[in-house]
Amino acid sequence: MSDWPDKRFLELVGAKHPIIQAPMANGGGVELCIAAIEGGALGSLPCGMLSVDQIREQVGDVRRAASGPLNLNFLCHRMPEGADDSAWRALLQPYYNELGIEPGGPGQLRLPFDGAACAAVEELRPEVVSFHYGLPSDALLDRAKATGAIILSSATTVAEAIWLEQRGVDAIIAQGLEAGGHSGRFLGSDPAEALGLFSLLPLIVDAVSVPVIAAGGIADGRGIAAALTLGASAVQVGTAYLLTDESLIAPPFKDLLPRRATVMTNLYSGGLARAARGRLIDELDAIREEAPPFPLASAALMPLWQAAQERGEWDFLLPLAGQSASLAKAMPAAEQTRQLAKDALAHIGSKADA
Amino acid sequence: MSDWPDKRFLELVGAKHPIIQAPMANGGGVELCIAAIEGGALGSLPCGMLSVDQIREQVGDVRRAASGPLNLNFLCHRMPEGADDSAWRALLQPYYNELGIEPGGPGQLRLPFDGAACAAVEELRPEVVSFHYGLPSDALLDRAKATGAIILSSATTVAEAIWLEQRGVDAIIAQGLEAGGHSGRFLGSDPAEALGLFSLLPLIVDAVSVPVIAAGGIADGRGIAAALTLGASAVQVGTAYLLTDESLIAPPFKDLLPRRATVMTNLYSGGLARAARGRLIDELDAIREEAPPFPLASAALMPLWQAAQERGEWDFLLPLAGQSASLAKAMPAAEQTRQLAKDALAHIGSKADA
Repeated sequence: MSDWPDKRFLELVGAKHPIIQAPMANGGGVELCIAAIEGGALGSLPCGMLSVDQIREQVGDVRRAASGPLNLNFLCHRMPEGADDSAWRALLQPYYNELGIEPGGPGQLRLPFDGAACAAVEELRPEVVSFHYGLPSDALLDRAKATGAIILSSATTVAEAIWLEQRGVDAIIAQGLEAGGHSGRFLGSDPAEALGLFSLLPLIVDAVSVPVIAAGGIADGRGIAAALTLGASAVQVGTAYLLTDESLIAPPFKDLLPRRATVMTNLYSGGLARAARGRLIDELDAIREEAPPFPLASAALMPLWQAAQERGEWDFLLPLAGQSASLAKAMPAAEQTRQLAKDALAHIGSKADA
Repeated sequence: MSDWPDKRFLELVGAKHPIIQAPMANGGGVELCIAAIEGGALGSLPCGMLSVDQIREQVGDVRRAASGPLNLNFLCHRMPEGADDSAWRALLQPYYNELGIEPGGPGQLRLPFDGAACAAVEELRPEVVSFHYGLPSDALLDRAKATGAIILSSATTVAEAIWLEQRGVDAIIAQGLEAGGHSGRFLGSDPAEALGLFSLLPLIVDAVSVPVIAAGGIADGRGIAAALTLGASAVQVGTAYLLTDESLIAPPFKDLLPRRATVMTNLYSGGLARAARGRLIDELDAIREEAPPFPLASAALMPLWQAAQERGEWDFLLPLAGQSASLAKAMPAAEQTRQLAKDALAHIGSKADA
């Protein structure tokens, strides 16, 4: 820990390196989290699609295998009511036909942080709780804070960062548009105004007094060093961990990611998310008005995902990923973490090794 | 010059600092170029809208006032033929009515580098010639190179960077999507795939062997230091120079820039360019199919610009600007240059002062 020039984040969460292994519902499970913690990062478990029992089980698995700080990630969207997804299902019908499936009900949707999830936090005592899409109600936030958990949330604009600081978060994730997965945008800014990390990061660093974590396009030691130079106290790395041995995504997807351009799409869930192109985006376009709002669109899409995966149609779908997949190297996640730290320290001129 | 860890760009062009004052047809003229050179940057003159006589006059003015390397910037687009802009003029008609003007003919359009412009380069011997939208024909490029000029061009993708290196450019400007003004995109990539500088810069650095110049969102010393950390040999700074005393844009525009979000728009010229929002974008949207292709759309827009400027309707239009306008500080351009260099050196830990 003492090798890093800025220790604010390290002291806050107790990690060895200023690296958060990003929570990724589609690629990061228990094994990835354990390996990232072993390497010295803050490990994360994405809980937006888990039941309380599943959260309890996964946290238990991590705690038995790794000693180091753990982040539980939750979503704070408002569930849309009564959305009609018939036009969306009609749009996808030719693909159901092609893959020979008959999609059923809504399946497992991403759900917002609620009283039961908060009770799980109170029971399981993660060192860190991170939110996406703003924050939960004051009552739930107060309960989460009362556990002693460090609270993080993502900002895509300066206004969102100030909003989060005013509500008492301990650190802010500056999510540049390079980032894979869902944009955490929550105050209604125009997506066309989305900021690259080179602009967003120093703007947020100047606007708030809490530590800032840089996210988006950071997949090697140079990127970490550059983010620290711009004022970040830590970085959040996602796509580089997708390529590790412990990631849940299938090997053909891992091979495909570095060769594919990414775009912002609403096909995945109805919310804007950065994903690698696939046949679905090529044929339907990245943004479709037929997609019902987040998270509802995933209900009709997930059966296609499963069918395509079973048939090995890797080019068909749209894996969530950031813009720097081709910078990342495939290796075990603990080694990835140590390599990122070592390379970053070399770039910032620290003589100490990681 | 000896303070900078990477001297490849400095040795190539002979500048004191690894900073290019970006050519900006709408904001940078002779005075800005002179002041930037005085501060130690590579000064640039945008020549895409100038006659050969005007180029000769401006270069003469710069040479008499400043000793230091000079960059002449030219465009390499193909002029579209026979485009009908009647729908575009019809779209703008309510604004003509509101401002009480009757727009005339095509006015002064951005023209591509041609034999006459090349003869001007042969006569005037700038140290550097930079191109936007790729490169001119092999014959013209060979003539420009034969003058001894260092040749630069912009890349927005790795493929464009490799294409430019294969054709013999001396250095490549990696233009992240944060950059203000026209995207230099020239190999037909999908604009939705545009890369933030955090991704684009290291990808290009890894893909080519010539020096890489980072552009987009860099408006202070931190940004320069971060770009050098990511492997850039120099940076190109635009918007920060727009706010200097010597910039040609009107003071109310300078005050407005840091308070406005920017978007990619084709309203300005027909080509995609990043501009600060104004009433025109708010009311028409940033992208309109009615706009004829680059550079033709500017013919019908420029009369509105002039009329709005005369009437002081600063909120009406769409000044070209990058995403980091609010990071920049207004000051004389020579001082801006020295301050950028000094702050960058402090961030990269150099003990020498600028």
